[in-house]
Amino acid sequence: MLDEANRWAVFGRLMPGIAHNINNSLAVIFGHIQLYKFKHPGFKEMDIIQEQAHQIKNIIGYLSGKACGEASTQKSSINICKLLENELNLLTADPFYKHEVKKTIDLPKDTPCINGYYRDISFALLSIINFSLDSMMEADRKEFVLSVSSDDDYITINVSDTGKPLSGQQNEAPDLASVDYQSARIGKYIVNLAKTRDIIARYHGEMSLISNNPSGKKIQICFPKQHDQ
Amino acid sequence: MLDEANRWAVFGRLMPGIAHNINNSLAVIFGHIQLYKFKHPGFKEMDIIQEQAHQIKNIIGYLSGKACGEASTQKSSINICKLLENELNLLTADPFYKHEVKKTIDLPKDTPCINGYYRDISFALLSIINFSLDSMMEADRKEFVLSVSSDDDYITINVSDTGKPLSGQQNEAPDLASVDYQSARIGKYIVNLAKTRDIIARYHGEMSLISNNPSGKKIQICFPKQHDQ
Repeated sequence: MLDEANRWAVFGRLMPGIAHNINNSLAVIFGHIQLYKFKHPGFKEMDIIQEQAHQIKNIIGYLSGKACGEASTQKSSINICKLLENELNLLTADPFYKHEVKKTIDLPKDTPCINGYYRDISFALLSIINFSLDSMMEADRKEFVLSVSSDDDYITINVSDTGKPLSGQQNEAPDLASVDYQSARIGKYIVNLAKTRDIIARYHGEMSLISNNPSGKKIQICFPKQHDQ
Repeated sequence: MLDEANRWAVFGRLMPGIAHNINNSLAVIFGHIQLYKFKHPGFKEMDIIQEQAHQIKNIIGYLSGKACGEASTQKSSINICKLLENELNLLTADPFYKHEVKKTIDLPKDTPCINGYYRDISFALLSIINFSLDSMMEADRKEFVLSVSSDDDYITINVSDTGKPLSGQQNEAPDLASVDYQSARIGKYIVNLAKTRDIIARYHGEMSLISNNPSGKKIQICFPKQHDQ
């Protein structure tokens, strides 16, 4: 366990340096674009180069954010919406999510923070998001809704999809925590929702299957707000 | 363990897509540079932009190589020299390695491959390389030599440094496998050479302390060549 964590640790420590090296190159590129534009105004090609360089800068930012977060061995104040924004931006590297799924995302910036480990929260939420996305692979409609809201007591994350419903054991209601399967989309052994439930429980939160029918399903995760921490 | 491995798996699966997105942007940049050069020959600024874009492309290649390698759950044919080249290129993100250490690296391209897991070989060799680099942090001379050679029976990796020697228990020769300490350079719990020895032993290889004195030390790792695999 520690050794695996170490791989992230080493990578997470190197990633800022890697990002720094790439950002250095980007800075030189941006600098020369500015110089060029100043000397030769009116060339539209330069704007395109600049725009693409900005896109690279953004991706490197997400990558760096994830690597540092995952590698962190310290509890920190985590903004769930920022974490999700970062992870979803990286998820656009997945062609299915990027091109085939209609996405409706609502991540209010003023969501209160949770004190915890980035790796926990990212693992728990991404397990459910990937489970939800995977269930739409064969569906005709592929609509994914992710929203975060908060009230005085809870931070609530709703994940809805139009994918196939969860099936239960005979005569029993489906149990989210029993989900443990291989995802063709992202890789083997990814989705284990029992582990996800345990992580959420460690933060005194809950996950539940709010609706589950042939037209889709909705999973809700609630974290109690932490007062005075 | 599996969950930790999963994080790499998810990341490793996403990384080609991330690299693809960045390479797409780079392709647009390269394309417009070409167009620009064709239309307006003789502007040197464009060469600088192109050169920096190439540097970004290289870094993304190393990053992608590592992420895919670490995430792989399949045995594959590993060229130790290519693996080391990739890892050392990423290690240039570490300012100490990049700027303070004098490096002599000899990685012959024609080194035979080993059948195994990228994660094993990278963990084992990087543990030793990081241990060696760390031991030079306080040294006046910081000279690091890494060479790979092969003969009919063995692939041999030599790691030399001018750092502080390894100390043994009273009256005993120093034992490499007893090394287990926190590295200020890369992060906590990184260097555990007992684990490294175990991984090398799984490949029927050995690690040994060839020399150990105040002017520096040399560690050697031998892997038997695998015939007819």
